[in-house]
Amino acid sequence: MAELKTTVPLKIRFSEVDSMHIVWHGHYATFFEDAREAFGRQYGLGYMDIYGQGFYAPLVEMSVKYRKPVLYDMNPDVTICFRPTDAAKIVFDYEITDHAGGEVLATGHTVQVFMDMEYRLVWANPEFYLNWKMKWNV
Amino acid sequence: MAELKTTVPLKIRFSEVDSMHIVWHGHYATFFEDAREAFGRQYGLGYMDIYGQGFYAPLVEMSVKYRKPVLYDMNPDVTICFRPTDAAKIVFDYEITDHAGGEVLATGHTVQVFMDMEYRLVWANPEFYLNWKMKWNV
Amino acid sequence: MAELKTTVPLKIRFSEVDSMHIVWHGHYATFFEDAREAFGRQYGLGYMDIYGQGFYAPLVEMSVKYRKPVLYDMNPDVTICFRPTDAAKIVFDYEITDHAGGEVLATGHTVQVFMDMEYRLVWANPEFYLNWKMKWNV
Amino acid sequence: MAELKTTVPLKIRFSEVDSMHIVWHGHYATFFEDAREAFGRQYGLGYMDIYGQGFYAPLVEMSVKYRKPVLYDMNPDVTICFRPTDAAKIVFDYEITDHAGGEVLATGHTVQVFMDMEYRLVWANPEFYLNWKMKWNV
Repeated sequence: MAELKTTVPLKIRFSEVDSMHIVWHGHYATFFEDAREAFGRQYGLGYMDIYGQGFYAPLVEMSVKYRKPVLYDMNPDVTICFRPTDAAKIVFDYEITDHAGGEVLATGHTVQVFMDMEYRLVWANPEFYLNWKMKWNV
Repeated sequence: MAELKTTVPLKIRFSEVDSMHIVWHGHYATFFEDAREAFGRQYGLGYMDIYGQGFYAPLVEMSVKYRKPVLYDMNPDVTICFRPTDAAKIVFDYEITDHAGGEVLATGHTVQVFMDMEYRLVWANPEFYLNWKMKWNV
Repeated sequence: MAELKTTVPLKIRFSEVDSMHIVWHGHYATFFEDAREAFGRQYGLGYMDIYGQGFYAPLVEMSVKYRKPVLYDMNPDVTICFRPTDAAKIVFDYEITDHAGGEVLATGHTVQVFMDMEYRLVWANPEFYLNWKMKWNV
Repeated sequence: MAELKTTVPLKIRFSEVDSMHIVWHGHYATFFEDAREAFGRQYGLGYMDIYGQGFYAPLVEMSVKYRKPVLYDMNPDVTICFRPTDAAKIVFDYEITDHAGGEVLATGHTVQVFMDMEYRLVWANPEFYLNWKMKWNV
């Protein structure tokens, strides 16, 4: 089974730093989103790809562990890795590292499910997703 | 001609304060939005009211003058005031004041136009808006 | 042992709703923050209280389970509940419910640690926090 | 007199698109900020450069004109241009264009003043800023 992953650099905005001079914890959701979108573009599993197949893929779970603060002048990377599963879900693991030293700053995961255009939960794997998994051997 | 206005209290979140210990200037767009939504509920001109008539009302203009910083422990108010105009536009003026002393902290304005459901600009006043203006004498 | 909790109403902003017409998952961090600040004011454990004792209390962990989408016209409540622990940590559980039907829309938790003003992790319970726990019997 | 400007590409996040399927107007403040930070790095006038000289440079004015909506799949650019002035202010003009067609999507401006570390307004041009203007001939 292949390991699908991609790494993207993060740009820390001045406005993302709070009055403790560290990046506000709530912004990590956008960092994960940046990673998810980069993954989607690279492997053909973006919001628009999924939408084009007649599905939404909302998050049903997210967790973050903050190990070291992210500072304004850091240039961290976020690595996203697809976690294979048989369920009709898209599961990703994330790792934010300090580009300079390679230190792990945070980890996390997200789980997405499929909904049809009437916002009904889809319990079985959509065919396009089965094909996608076969194509990438995951 | 009547003066339509409403005042709402603002709750400053810790995450809205930047590393200068003041509210980040970009958040004022949400303060104005809070005011606009309160106005919409009070006078029947909310996003959903407009949408229910078959229109969007996107912003085409926004300005803010920041006179004094807004601090975390302040309880400011924002006052929104409808500015009458003959054009097919919704124009609002805003004033953010320190609840304690009444000092003006910021002022601003927004301009909205009407678009139909195909995102085409609507040049003439929609009938529902003319009726709304007549009803409120503005 | 007492159960310390508080419930606050949430105001959904138009800008918090994404193109799936549901509240974007990343905003839940601010909903939890709203709850934490309300708890802090009610029980004397706010950011400023902690800062006044010479400590920061950054988050080191956050999780959210999204059960049902939050829609623009909902008036959800968030309930925050202090989870007792012997460690030098502040742990909260959260539950977002639909005000109308009482349905659970989301759950989550956060963990905060103590850092001194030089951003060094504090391993032992600060005295003020021990006193706070004794006062509230948690 | 020289014209100091720089252009940066914008990445539109899914979460920045609202339920009208266009980028929420409030996000333009971060687009301008991205441009300002790129300008600051290129010409040595970033937040940290200014802070290192003993000053803050908060915004006192911002305006945006939204001409065409920014869509999720666009790759717009933002161009920032320094507007020379004798006052102790930093004034920038902005233009957001569609990378594909070159069409102007939005324009705007910001004004920043100088404050010392005690948050007192500085009326005269700080010496470092006069030197900076001389160096770049603006």
